[in-house]
Amino acid sequence: MNSTVYIGNKSIMNYVLAVLTQFNKENAEKVIIKARGKAISRAVDVEEMVKNRFLPDVEVKEVKLGTDQIKNEEGKLINISTIEIVLSK
Amino acid sequence: MNSTVYIGNKSIMNYVLAVLTQFNKENAEKVIIKARGKAISRAVDVEEMVKNRFLPDVEVKEVKLGTDQIKNEEGKLINISTIEIVLSK
Repeated sequence: MNSTVYIGNKSIMNYVLAVLTQFNKENAEKVIIKARGKAISRAVDVEEMVKNRFLPDVEVKEVKLGTDQIKNEEGKLINISTIEIVLSK
Repeated sequence: MNSTVYIGNKSIMNYVLAVLTQFNKENAEKVIIKARGKAISRAVDVEEMVKNRFLPDVEVKEVKLGTDQIKNEEGKLINISTIEIVLSK
């Protein structure tokens, strides 16, 4: 089973707990951490904290970088960078 | 020849130009984009802009995530996330 955790503006620990829950309670084999724009740095913080402090057996299997198009406040299409970090046990 | 571009607080275009210069003028085969903390999102922006707008032949060969320890303003050691994006022609 694969699960995805989307990184937003909450504190890092919220997302760390979400990842730990997927691995521990839901028995996920892979958890994908996804983020866009400025939340990308926070996604790396979450991955590093999960791996270094809580689940040393978890590995980063893949890191995918990309671009999405979103509408800004004025309704104009703009590019925003994306990251997907695939963690697996 | 490998070259490294460190991402700081300048505008994205500065770093895009630095990467293009390494590939074009210096004939680098690989360029490594490195960033820490909040600059990580900007590093992805630079990589995406280089690849999508300027050098479509360039590939992301590897993305390494990690943690550095740095001293904060009070002299206390804190963890900061890092990224290395390896681009190659």
